[in-house]
Amino acid sequence: MKFGVDYYPEHWPKERWPIDAGLMKEAGIEVVRMAEFAWAKMEPCEGSYDFAWLDEAIEILGREGIKTVLGTPTPTPPIWIIKKNPEILPVNRDGVRLGFGGRHHDCQSNPTYREHIKRFVTVMARHYSNNPHVVGWQIDNEFGNSHQSLCMCDSCSVAFHKWLENKYETIEKLNEAWGTIFWSQTYSMFDQIPMPLPTPNGHNPSLLLDWKRFASDLIVDFQKYQVDIIRRECPNHFITHNFMGFFDKTDYFNLAKDLDFISHDQYPMHFRKNRDAIAPSYRLAAILDLMRGMKQKPFWIMEQQSGPAGWETISSTPRPGQLALWTYQSVAHGADTVVYFRWRSCLFGTEEYWHGILPHHGIPERRYEEIKQTINELGPVMDHFKGGLPESEVGILFSYDQEWAFQIQPHHFELEYISHMLGYYRAFYDANIPVDMLSEEQEFSRYKLLVAPLMFLTKPDLTAKLEKYVAEGGHLVLTMRTGVKDWNNAVISKILPGDFSPLVGIKIPEYDCLRDIDQSVRWAASELYEKVEKVSKWADIITLDGADALACYTEDYYKDTPAITQNTYKHGMAYYVATELGPEVMKEFVSYAVNHGGIKPIMQTPQGVEAARRKGNDGDYIFILNHNPKSAVLNMPLGWKAVIGEKFMRGNELHLSQYAVAVFKSEQV
Amino acid sequence: MKFGVDYYPEHWPKERWPIDAGLMKEAGIEVVRMAEFAWAKMEPCEGSYDFAWLDEAIEILGREGIKTVLGTPTPTPPIWIIKKNPEILPVNRDGVRLGFGGRHHDCQSNPTYREHIKRFVTVMARHYSNNPHVVGWQIDNEFGNSHQSLCMCDSCSVAFHKWLENKYETIEKLNEAWGTIFWSQTYSMFDQIPMPLPTPNGHNPSLLLDWKRFASDLIVDFQKYQVDIIRRECPNHFITHNFMGFFDKTDYFNLAKDLDFISHDQYPMHFRKNRDAIAPSYRLAAILDLMRGMKQKPFWIMEQQSGPAGWETISSTPRPGQLALWTYQSVAHGADTVVYFRWRSCLFGTEEYWHGILPHHGIPERRYEEIKQTINELGPVMDHFKGGLPESEVGILFSYDQEWAFQIQPHHFELEYISHMLGYYRAFYDANIPVDMLSEEQEFSRYKLLVAPLMFLTKPDLTAKLEKYVAEGGHLVLTMRTGVKDWNNAVISKILPGDFSPLVGIKIPEYDCLRDIDQSVRWAASELYEKVEKVSKWADIITLDGADALACYTEDYYKDTPAITQNTYKHGMAYYVATELGPEVMKEFVSYAVNHGGIKPIMQTPQGVEAARRKGNDGDYIFILNHNPKSAVLNMPLGWKAVIGEKFMRGNELHLSQYAVAVFKSEQV
Amino acid sequence: MKFGVDYYPEHWPKERWPIDAGLMKEAGIEVVRMAEFAWAKMEPCEGSYDFAWLDEAIEILGREGIKTVLGTPTPTPPIWIIKKNPEILPVNRDGVRLGFGGRHHDCQSNPTYREHIKRFVTVMARHYSNNPHVVGWQIDNEFGNSHQSLCMCDSCSVAFHKWLENKYETIEKLNEAWGTIFWSQTYSMFDQIPMPLPTPNGHNPSLLLDWKRFASDLIVDFQKYQVDIIRRECPNHFITHNFMGFFDKTDYFNLAKDLDFISHDQYPMHFRKNRDAIAPSYRLAAILDLMRGMKQKPFWIMEQQSGPAGWETISSTPRPGQLALWTYQSVAHGADTVVYFRWRSCLFGTEEYWHGILPHHGIPERRYEEIKQTINELGPVMDHFKGGLPESEVGILFSYDQEWAFQIQPHHFELEYISHMLGYYRAFYDANIPVDMLSEEQEFSRYKLLVAPLMFLTKPDLTAKLEKYVAEGGHLVLTMRTGVKDWNNAVISKILPGDFSPLVGIKIPEYDCLRDIDQSVRWAASELYEKVEKVSKWADIITLDGADALACYTEDYYKDTPAITQNTYKHGMAYYVATELGPEVMKEFVSYAVNHGGIKPIMQTPQGVEAARRKGNDGDYIFILNHNPKSAVLNMPLGWKAVIGEKFMRGNELHLSQYAVAVFKSEQV
Repeated sequence: MKFGVDYYPEHWPKERWPIDAGLMKEAGIEVVRMAEFAWAKMEPCEGSYDFAWLDEAIEILGREGIKTVLGTPTPTPPIWIIKKNPEILPVNRDGVRLGFGGRHHDCQSNPTYREHIKRFVTVMARHYSNNPHVVGWQIDNEFGNSHQSLCMCDSCSVAFHKWLENKYETIEKLNEAWGTIFWSQTYSMFDQIPMPLPTPNGHNPSLLLDWKRFASDLIVDFQKYQVDIIRRECPNHFITHNFMGFFDKTDYFNLAKDLDFISHDQYPMHFRKNRDAIAPSYRLAAILDLMRGMKQKPFWIMEQQSGPAGWETISSTPRPGQLALWTYQSVAHGADTVVYFRWRSCLFGTEEYWHGILPHHGIPERRYEEIKQTINELGPVMDHFKGGLPESEVGILFSYDQEWAFQIQPHHFELEYISHMLGYYRAFYDANIPVDMLSEEQEFSRYKLLVAPLMFLTKPDLTAKLEKYVAEGGHLVLTMRTGVKDWNNAVISKILPGDFSPLVGIKIPEYDCLRDIDQSVRWAASELYEKVEKVSKWADIITLDGADALACYTEDYYKDTPAITQNTYKHGMAYYVATELGPEVMKEFVSYAVNHGGIKPIMQTPQGVEAARRKGNDGDYIFILNHNPKSAVLNMPLGWKAVIGEKFMRGNELHLSQYAVAVFKSEQV
Repeated sequence: MKFGVDYYPEHWPKERWPIDAGLMKEAGIEVVRMAEFAWAKMEPCEGSYDFAWLDEAIEILGREGIKTVLGTPTPTPPIWIIKKNPEILPVNRDGVRLGFGGRHHDCQSNPTYREHIKRFVTVMARHYSNNPHVVGWQIDNEFGNSHQSLCMCDSCSVAFHKWLENKYETIEKLNEAWGTIFWSQTYSMFDQIPMPLPTPNGHNPSLLLDWKRFASDLIVDFQKYQVDIIRRECPNHFITHNFMGFFDKTDYFNLAKDLDFISHDQYPMHFRKNRDAIAPSYRLAAILDLMRGMKQKPFWIMEQQSGPAGWETISSTPRPGQLALWTYQSVAHGADTVVYFRWRSCLFGTEEYWHGILPHHGIPERRYEEIKQTINELGPVMDHFKGGLPESEVGILFSYDQEWAFQIQPHHFELEYISHMLGYYRAFYDANIPVDMLSEEQEFSRYKLLVAPLMFLTKPDLTAKLEKYVAEGGHLVLTMRTGVKDWNNAVISKILPGDFSPLVGIKIPEYDCLRDIDQSVRWAASELYEKVEKVSKWADIITLDGADALACYTEDYYKDTPAITQNTYKHGMAYYVATELGPEVMKEFVSYAVNHGGIKPIMQTPQGVEAARRKGNDGDYIFILNHNPKSAVLNMPLGWKAVIGEKFMRGNELHLSQYAVAVFKSEQV
Repeated sequence: MKFGVDYYPEHWPKERWPIDAGLMKEAGIEVVRMAEFAWAKMEPCEGSYDFAWLDEAIEILGREGIKTVLGTPTPTPPIWIIKKNPEILPVNRDGVRLGFGGRHHDCQSNPTYREHIKRFVTVMARHYSNNPHVVGWQIDNEFGNSHQSLCMCDSCSVAFHKWLENKYETIEKLNEAWGTIFWSQTYSMFDQIPMPLPTPNGHNPSLLLDWKRFASDLIVDFQKYQVDIIRRECPNHFITHNFMGFFDKTDYFNLAKDLDFISHDQYPMHFRKNRDAIAPSYRLAAILDLMRGMKQKPFWIMEQQSGPAGWETISSTPRPGQLALWTYQSVAHGADTVVYFRWRSCLFGTEEYWHGILPHHGIPERRYEEIKQTINELGPVMDHFKGGLPESEVGILFSYDQEWAFQIQPHHFELEYISHMLGYYRAFYDANIPVDMLSEEQEFSRYKLLVAPLMFLTKPDLTAKLEKYVAEGGHLVLTMRTGVKDWNNAVISKILPGDFSPLVGIKIPEYDCLRDIDQSVRWAASELYEKVEKVSKWADIITLDGADALACYTEDYYKDTPAITQNTYKHGMAYYVATELGPEVMKEFVSYAVNHGGIKPIMQTPQGVEAARRKGNDGDYIFILNHNPKSAVLNMPLGWKAVIGEKFMRGNELHLSQYAVAVFKSEQV
C-alpha cells in the first residue's frame, strides 16, 4: 500500500461507490481511510448499530483491491450522546462550556464519555476484526485540533489533581517544586490546586507547565484507552494516529509510543490570514523530519493536501505540479504511504471547501490526472527504498517541554521555540545536509553534530548525556537561555549557563532582552572576511572561561564581547550561540560547524531546489525537488542515474521546469 | 409634510416647549417624531399610564401646525419590567445575558415581553387614535442596532426550532438539506438543533444561514406584532420604521412589506475608528437607492444627520453647506420627507454628543440657519416631483441571503458582498447613470442592464427568471462565485457556473483564491488601447463555451485565459466577470456594457459632482451636487432651467462653490 | 533611613538571611519592606499564627541596623480562605468570577473578607507593635494593580447602591443629575441601578463616572479599614502605601489623606509590547512630581527598579549608570527614601524575571556595585535637603475626575487626559522649569502660572477659585473642552466655555473633532518669526470676546480664527489653548507664558539633560542628570559648587558621560 485516499462513502449515494472505486483503482489507489466521523451513522441511537453500509463500501472497494483503514469516530459523539450526557462537552480556558455543532466537542477525561467509547469501539472493532479488506485503525482524528483551549471542566480538575499527586506524591514536594511560597499560594491538599482559569495577574509558571504536561498525558491516555480495546479485538491490525506536524498540544513522542507507526497530515497551502500562503519548503521538510523522528522510522501521510483547502476562507489553488512535488517531498523525507485528503470535495458541512482530488461535481480533472501520473511514476520506484531512511549526520533536539516553557514565558514578544529552531534547520536544509529531529530520550551518539536550541529547562541526566556526547567526540550547539531552569520550570540558582558552563567554557553574568534596541554580530571566524548582521530578541552577555569567540556583538555597552563561542571539550566541541542570528551569520556558523564536524552535503543546488536522500536496498535514492515557480538547472554528479525525470537531463545537466522533480540513484553506496 | 425633526420634549422643561415649537415653525418644520424611548415616562409602573405630558407637547406643536409621528417605545423597556421579568434580557453569541443600562435590552421572541408590549402599545395607540395632530407611527427604533449579536436565549432556541420545523416539516428533510451526515451531526428531533453558540470548530454553514434567516424573520414578526395592534386601533394612521441602509440583521425587503412606507436614518459622518470620516458620496447614494428600492417608491428620512455625532467618540463637524448638500442628496434619490435628528443636542445620557440642529445651549446658530434656508429653498420645489422617481435603466440585485452567505464563508479575508457590489455601483454613479437597487422578487424587465453580483446561492425559479430576462433582450452581468450553492447553502454538484453555463457560455473548471498572489487583467475590448490593472480576492478560471473574452488574466498558470466574457444569448447579452476588478477596468467594463445596452447618462460632471434625477409632474428635476471641498464648473445642457441655484450660473456655466447644490428642470420630458 | 530594599526572607533558606543582611549593610541599606504577600506563611490555617520566622528575619536584619517596614498581606488571601469563602473572589466587567492563582483575587467590598482582615491584621499589628526594629507599615500592595476591571460582584452592587444613596439622598435627585429620562432609564429605587456590566449600547456617562468614583472610594475605604486597626494597635508606627504613578483606579489624592506619607513604585523600563522600552525622562519626572504633589511633601520610593523586569516578557537591561541615574532623579523630585525592588531575583513564581539587585544566584555583581556606590555618594548629601522641596513657580492641576471623564468619552480615539497634560509638562521640563502637580483642593496662589488642562467637568466653587486666582494676579492656562460639563458628567446648557467665558474673553460656538482632517496653527505672537505646526484631535472654534489671538488655525472653514488666546483679567492673565498642540508651538507658547509670568528656569541644558532642584537647609541643591546614551557638556553657572560629580568638571564646564549625574549646591539662596 503506497497510495490512498480519505473516503466518506456516507456522503454520497450508494450508486456512486462503484464509480469511485473504479476511478481510484485507475489512479493507482490501494487503500482508503474511512469512518472516523461516522458515529451517528453507525450507532444512530444508543446500542443500535448499523455497519451494513460500511460493510458494503469496504466490499465494493475491496473488490478493486483497495484495503481499508478504519478511524474510530470518537471526535464526533452524536447529538443523542450529548443530550443524554451534556457533561461531556468541554470547557474552554475562560470557563465556558462549548456546545454541539462542530467536532471534538468532548472532554477527554470524562468517565461517562469513556464508557460510551468502550461500548462502541469494542463493538466496531469486533465487527471488523476478521474483515479481509480491513488492515488497520486510526484512533480518533488529529488529537488537539479544534481544542483551541484545553478542557477545564470539573472532571479535568479531578484528573489534574490525580496527575499531580502521582507526580509529586506529597503536597509538600509540590509546594517546594513550584515555589508556592510566592504570593501565598501554599497548598495543603492537592484538590485545592486551581486549573489555570482566568485570575488577576498570571499563574505560577510551574503550574502552567504541569498543566500542559497533564493535558498532553491525558491525550496519550485517551488514545491508549482505545488502543487497548483494538489490540485486544483486532490483534492482526495495525494502529496509527494522524499527527499534525508542529502542533503541540500533545508531546507527540509520547503519543507515538503506543502506535505501530505514526501518520501525519501535510497541508502546504494555508487558508488563514497572517500565515504564509504556501509554507516555505524548509518548513515542510522540517515537519516531515520531525514526523520521521517520532519513531525514527518511516511513516504514513494520512492526509496529503489534494486541492485548495479551508473553512470560511480558502487557500490559493495548488499550481500544476505542486501536488506531485509535495508527494515526492513527503516520500523523500520518509513517508512509505501517502493518503490524499480527500477523494472528492464535499457538498455540505463545515469542510465543503476542503477540496478533494475530485471536484464537487465528481468528474476527474487536472488534479486527478496529476496524482494519477505521480502514482504511476513514483510507485514502482518506492519499492526499492521502502523502510529506508536518510543518512543524517546532524541531529536537532526537539522538546515539547521547552516549547511549552517558552509559550508560558516567551521573554521577548516574538521569541518562539519552533521558529528559533527553524533558523538552524533552514541553514542545514539550504546546504542539502540531511537532518534528523529527535527527542532527548533518543540516541545522540550516531550524530556528528547535534543542535539543542533553547535548552531552557534542564535535568541532570540530560545534562550528563550531553556532556558524555561531547566528551566522546560529538559536536554540540547550545544556544541562549540554556540551563536557566530546572524541569519544574523554576530558576536554578547558578551562574548561567549553569551546569553547562564547563562544557561550553563560558559564563553569562548578564543578558539583555532586545526590545527596541538594535544589536548586531560580527562573524570573524573566517580569515577572509567579516560579516555583520542584525540579531534579535535576546542577547546573553558572555565572559569567556576557556572558550574562543567566533563572533562578537557590535553595539552598546557589551560591544565586542562574544556572541558565538566554541570550546574544545575532551574529544568533542561545544558551541554556544548567545542570540537569535539572522540568516547570513547563521549560514556562516552552520557552514563552520559542518566543516569542522566533517559533515558532507548531498550536493549543491540552486536556491529553492531541494536535494533529499533515502537509503534503498540497492543504493541511495536522491530526490531533486524544484520548489521554485521557475525553472532551474543543476550539474548532476557523475555516477548518478535518473530513475524518474530522465527527460529533464541534457547531458550532465538537469533542467527542471517549475515545481518539477527527478529521482536519481547513486551507484556509490 | 416635507421637513421634520426628532423631538424629545421629556428632556426639557415644559416652559421650553412653546419656544421650540416657535423656532421649528420659523424654520419650516412641519412634523416631529416623538416618544420612541419614553416608555418609563408614559408608564412609570405597571398599568399606570401618564400621557398628559405628551398630549400637551403634541398640542403645543399642533398649534404651530406641526404634526406628530409617534414611536412605540419598545426599544427601551423600563427597569421595572426588567426587574419583574429578567428573562426578557437578551443573550449574546457567547451565551452571556446582557444587562440593563443601554437600550434594546430585550429578546424579541420572548412571550412575556410581547405581553408587556401588547398591553402598553394597545393603550397608547387607543389614546392617540383620534388625536388630530397625530398622523402616523414608527414601530420601535432601528431594529438590529445595539444587537451586536443576535439573541441566543432559551426562548429564541424554541422559536428557532419552530421556525425550522415550519420550513422543513420533517427532520429528515433538514438532515438532507443541511448535509448533517457530515461530522455525525444527524438530528432525530428539531429540538436537538443547537443555536450557533461557541463550539470547537465551526458550525454547519447551512445551520448558520438558517439562523440568520430565522433571526431576520423574528424581527419581521416582532414588528408585525405591533403593526397589527396599531392597524386595528389607528386605522387612519400610517405606519413606518426607520431602516439603517446597509445594516443587515434583517432582510429589509421583508421588513418593508408590512409598512406603508419605509424610513431611513442617514448619517454621512461617522464617529468610529477605521471608518471613513465622511462616507463617500457614492456610498450615500447607494444607500438611498437601496432604501428607495425597498418598496420601489419614495421614502422618508426619519433621521437626517444635523450635526457632529457620536457616543464616546465624535465625528468631525459638518462643514458649512454639507447639511444642505446631504438634504438635497436624500431628496434627489427619493426622499419625500426629511426629518432631522435631532432638534436639540441632549444634555445627558449616552447620546449627548449626537448634536442636534440646536446646540446644547438651545440658541439657534449656524446649523439652524443652514437648515432653515435649505427648507426655504427646496421645500416649494419638492411639490413638483413628490412621488416621482429617477428613471433608472440599470438595476442592481441586492440580496440579504447572498450577503449572509458571504459573511459565513467570505472565501477571502477581505471579500465582502456589499463592497464588491459597490464596485459596480460606483462606476455607474461616477458616470451619472441612475441605478435602482432591487430584490430578486421585483420585476427585472424594466431594466436594460441588470447587475447581479456574487449570485452565490441559487434557486431554480430565480435562475429561470434571469434566463428569461436575457432571452427577451435584457443585458445581465454575473460575477465570480455565481451558481455555487443551492438556497440551503450546500454546494451544487455541477461544473460552475452550474445552470448559468448556457446563459454565459463558459465553464469554470478551477478557481484561485488571490491571497498573496498578484494577478491582473488586461482589458482588450477597446480597439484603441489596452488597460492592465490589478485584481483581487478571487479568480475564476474560465473555459469559453460560446462566449467571447473581453479581458484576460496576465499572470501565473492561467495567464491569457478570460477574466471577463460576453455571450449573446437569444435576444440578450450575458456578461461574466470572474474576479474583483479594480476601478479602472471596472470603468471600462461598465462603459462598454452601458454603450452596448443603449443606456444614457444624465450628463457628464467633474469628479465628485453628482447629477441625480427625479421625475416631476411637469418635467425632470436634475440635482447637481458638489461633494467636493472645492468649487467646480460644469457646462449645463441647453434647455435646462435652474430652479434652485440660479445665482451660480455664468452664461451656460454652472459655478458651484464647495458643497453647493443646484436643481434644474429639464424641458424635454 | 535613606535607602532600603524589598526583601522576602520566606523565599530563601534561613541560612541565607545573615549573609543577605551583611551584604545589605555593606551596601548602605538601612530599611527593608517585608511580608506583604506572606499571609499563608503567617497564618497557615484559620486562627493558627506563625510569626516566628518573620521575628527571626527582623532580628537578624535589626542586628545590622536595618529597620523593617511591614506590609499587610491582604493582596494575597491564602487558598484556605478562598476555599472557605469563594464569594470573596472578584468578578470582572464581563461578569466572570476570577479564580485563585495570582494575587489580588479579592473583592474589596466583601464583608467576609473584611472579617478575615480584621482578625489577621489585628493579630499581626499587635504582635509587632513593640518590636524595636519595626518602624512602619505599608497597607496591602499597589491598590488597583491586577484589577484589570473593577469588581462587579453582588457585594459591590450593594455597596454601590449605598454609595449612591449617600451621595444623592433621594432617587429623584439621582434621576435628575444623571438625566435618566434618556432612554427610559428612570429608577424608582437605588437598588434598581445596574453596575456597568455589558449591555446593548453604552451606559449612561453619569453612571459610568459615579461607578469609577465609587470604585475609587471603595479602595480608600478598604485602606482606611486597615489604617484604623494599625493606628490603634501601633500608635508609634508610620503608615504608607505604595502608589503607582499614573495608575488611576483610585483618586490618589484621597488615598493619600489617611497616610503619614505616600510611597511610589518607579519602573522606568517596561516589559510590555507597544510601550516605550524606557519611559521618556520627562514622563518619569512628571510621575515623581505628581507623587510629591499628593501631600505636597517628600515621599518614599517603595519600589525603585533594580534590574530587568517582567512577567512572561522581560524589559531590556538597565545600562550601566541607569540605576544610579534613576535613583538620583527620584531623590531630585522629592524622594527622601529609596527602597529598591527587590533584593534578589526570585527563583520561582510569577515574578521570577523581576530582577533584584542580586541575580538569581545571589552573588553580588554589577548592579549591586552600582547601587552601593550610589548610596555611598548620594546618602551623605541627602541629609542637607531632607524634607526640602523644589521651589516651583508653575503648577499643573491634575484631576482624576477629568481623567475618568475622558476615559468614558475620549471624544477622539487618541485623546487621553494624561498624555495631553504631558504635552504641557514636557515643555516646562525641557526648559528646566520646576513644576508642581496639584489637586483642585490645594492652594493655587503660590504659583505664578497655573495650567489646568482639559477642565471638562466644572463645579461652581472651582470656577470661582480659578477666577479669584486670576483676579488676584495669577496667570492661568485653560484648554479645549473646558467647562463642558457639570460635576455629574452632564452637559451644561451654556455657550462654551460656560462660566469661564468672561475669564478667558472668548466664546466657542462650534468645535471640530480632528479625525482624518489636517489642521495646523500658526504661532504669530513673536514679532520675529512665524511658526506653523500640525495640531491634532480637537479644535475649538473661537470667537474673540475681549481676548487677543496668539495663534490661529491655518486650514478649512475656520482658517485664520484663533487657536490660542490671551485675556487680561483684573490683575491676572488667562490663556485659552483650543487644540492639542504639537511640541514646537507648545514650546513657543510655554516660553511666552513663562516670560510674561516672570518665571525663571534653573538653567539651560542640552537636550536630554535634566536640571532639578531641591531646597536644602544650607542652600539649593541642583541635580544635573544626563538621560542621554551619550555624553553632554554644560556651562555651569558661577557660584555653584559640585558636591557630587566634581570629577566631571573641566574648569567651568561639566562633562557628563552617558547616564552620568552631578549635584551642585547653589550659594545664592
